[in-house]
Amino acid sequence: MQNQHIIRNIIVETPSKPGNFAKVATAIGMAEGDIGDITTLKSGALTTIRDITITCKSKDQLDQVISNIEAIDNGVKIHAVTDDVLKAHEGGKIAMKSRLDVRSLRDLQRIYTPGVASVCMDILHNPEKANYFTSIGTSVAIVTDGTAILGLGNIGPVAGMPVMEGKAVLLDQFVGLSGIPILLNTSDPDEIVETIKHIHKGFGAILLEDIGSPHCFEIEERLKAELPIPVMHDDQHGTAVVALAAILSACKATNVDIKKAKIGQIGLGAAGLAICRMLMAYGVEEVYGLDRQEAAQERLLNYGGQTLESLEAVMEKCDIIVATTGVSGLIKAEMVRKGQIILALSNPNPEILPSEAIAAGAAFAADGRSVNNVIGFPGIFKGALDAGAKEITYPMLIAASLAIVNHTKPGELIPNPLDPTLHHIVARAVEESANQGIE
Amino acid sequence: MQNQHIIRNIIVETPSKPGNFAKVATAIGMAEGDIGDITTLKSGALTTIRDITITCKSKDQLDQVISNIEAIDNGVKIHAVTDDVLKAHEGGKIAMKSRLDVRSLRDLQRIYTPGVASVCMDILHNPEKANYFTSIGTSVAIVTDGTAILGLGNIGPVAGMPVMEGKAVLLDQFVGLSGIPILLNTSDPDEIVETIKHIHKGFGAILLEDIGSPHCFEIEERLKAELPIPVMHDDQHGTAVVALAAILSACKATNVDIKKAKIGQIGLGAAGLAICRMLMAYGVEEVYGLDRQEAAQERLLNYGGQTLESLEAVMEKCDIIVATTGVSGLIKAEMVRKGQIILALSNPNPEILPSEAIAAGAAFAADGRSVNNVIGFPGIFKGALDAGAKEITYPMLIAASLAIVNHTKPGELIPNPLDPTLHHIVARAVEESANQGIE
Repeated sequence: MQNQHIIRNIIVETPSKPGNFAKVATAIGMAEGDIGDITTLKSGALTTIRDITITCKSKDQLDQVISNIEAIDNGVKIHAVTDDVLKAHEGGKIAMKSRLDVRSLRDLQRIYTPGVASVCMDILHNPEKANYFTSIGTSVAIVTDGTAILGLGNIGPVAGMPVMEGKAVLLDQFVGLSGIPILLNTSDPDEIVETIKHIHKGFGAILLEDIGSPHCFEIEERLKAELPIPVMHDDQHGTAVVALAAILSACKATNVDIKKAKIGQIGLGAAGLAICRMLMAYGVEEVYGLDRQEAAQERLLNYGGQTLESLEAVMEKCDIIVATTGVSGLIKAEMVRKGQIILALSNPNPEILPSEAIAAGAAFAADGRSVNNVIGFPGIFKGALDAGAKEITYPMLIAASLAIVNHTKPGELIPNPLDPTLHHIVARAVEESANQGIE
Repeated sequence: MQNQHIIRNIIVETPSKPGNFAKVATAIGMAEGDIGDITTLKSGALTTIRDITITCKSKDQLDQVISNIEAIDNGVKIHAVTDDVLKAHEGGKIAMKSRLDVRSLRDLQRIYTPGVASVCMDILHNPEKANYFTSIGTSVAIVTDGTAILGLGNIGPVAGMPVMEGKAVLLDQFVGLSGIPILLNTSDPDEIVETIKHIHKGFGAILLEDIGSPHCFEIEERLKAELPIPVMHDDQHGTAVVALAAILSACKATNVDIKKAKIGQIGLGAAGLAICRMLMAYGVEEVYGLDRQEAAQERLLNYGGQTLESLEAVMEKCDIIVATTGVSGLIKAEMVRKGQIILALSNPNPEILPSEAIAAGAAFAADGRSVNNVIGFPGIFKGALDAGAKEITYPMLIAASLAIVNHTKPGELIPNPLDPTLHHIVARAVEESANQGIE
């Protein structure tokens, strides 16, 4: 499954007369191009030039958009089709920066020799001071072996680097943490665990990212057991935090008591299994999982979950359906039970369209467009580090979910990730939970 | 040997009458405190408050400075003794920053999902594009096991972190590279080599830093042989580049032909051995090394160098003496031969004071205060990365030394590290050398 949207900026000139831009918008819509931001570059007496952001699902669709616009004629002209995504990635998206300017010899002596020696000795004699006088306590290693990059699959760690840098951007921008990508050229659990153990002292926490199933389970469990710092596989638990928040918001909207509900999780990959575990940790009594793979179902049983034998059985038995299969259109309208809550989270194409599920009788339906990890991991890591936590526990993750739910506006599934207070609120909830040490 | 200077800021109030500040300065000087920057914080009608930066060699000396000032009385008052070195280290000296602001949903889509997927696929199909669309090509891993931090010894990687962050600050400020500290909790060469091999794909180059002798030699050689990116142990070759530049400038000042000179290297630790190898690579025919340790002398012989049996023999035979022993006062005035060039580089206390060496007949003498790696490594790494070099060769290192010499003002041993053009010039020289591929 390739989750590969194409985003382009089309620079279009139109005569400055009413109705001309509508023709362009129609031409784009006819090819099912998705119009995003529009910036007016020039607004002249005769013509207007606009920069229109278009999202397409394929190169063919983009070509169709372009030829539709060109076919308008009548003075409408495409000047350029640029790609500001690539432009934004030029030179990489992150850089290690000094927090101080070095402008004088005095600055140099302060941050380097000889001044630095006294700081080193201070830390040697008081190891906990490393948290105050170095960046260790605010640094998160973003570790990947490149085996499960987004929906793109096993493309390797270097091709996955833009995603790791993206995570680092979000850690910086949302909670002021330093995200340090660590690209592993091995997928062997023993080698990964050894490598991270050998370098962990430079970091306050470890974010495992886009590591494939099933080796992600062993790697995370061993690192959690062996390292004295928080370790979290975001594709599992970050996703589960956001999913739990979404399910809770859906229950709120439909007056369903989640703990008494029967929840069916379709797809038991890294995310699906973690959602089941999170629901059980939250206190949901009846969680049922389904996966084509025997081994995946086995894993859920080992964690104390229950399984069902078929998609039909899940759809029939459960009040709440969560699907993370990556299989577009897997759930048919005729399977939907009246009053069901259905979260079909696969991107870009859900297991069932929300409109179709509602038409078939569902009480609530949503797809995965807004259910993005970006809501969770920055605040989770910030809170854990601020608390000086040695691990990220289920109570901390549940506290994050509840903070997200409290911050979700009525009628919405998930808050806006750009809300400047959101990540702060999540961090505080996680920190408080860590300090209470609730198990 | 502890290279531990104490830098403090003393906030002093004096009556606003001529002569009062002189009393403070005298009090400091009587305790042999070194006065640095002085900032006037308040200049009132009755009293003046100044922030005086003091460098001392010990806590006792600092206490003496303080009690000397307090003894002045007469309206002179110390308000505070602050430590702006520690202050500068609060929260660490570096942070991984986003190069773009995330202010809109569009920004998020551009730097994260879904936009990022197209960049990943682009790199997958054209791996060389990772250099353009990620930070890999401008990132340098600063790797230490903490076994030889400055002159402080084996204090471990965490206590050594302020030094690693200092290196990262200099890479950012002088050449715009991202320095990423990697703290190893193992000193075993096999484990270090394996660990670095497993994480190297995230970096454009590897800077080995403050790794002790002798395991530093094996680690560097194996990594150079096995990795396709530049690897350099700065304590060896960075130091040697700056030392060669200093020796060349000393030869220039005294009209000595370095290639025909007999050079004696006293101390064959990481730096000393590297200086010998650099001199031989430069074409000096007679390089003699001396070390108390048999194994160190053996290493020099294996690299094709020659050894002498005693300090006296070196002092008698050689025209140029370079000392990196860490032993203050090792060279006695009576050993100095007329016309000798003597670089006694140990910090903070040289093997012989320059004034003493000159008085004993040396033609040129200097200590190690100005001979700091900071002159070399930023430009060396920038040049190697700009050239896309796969390794750092002796011709590249020599090119760096020559660029430093060309940029040194007559009468000086080494240029000012804060000269904004210096690092640029070193980088260009290294890049050109790499592109010529001179062996």
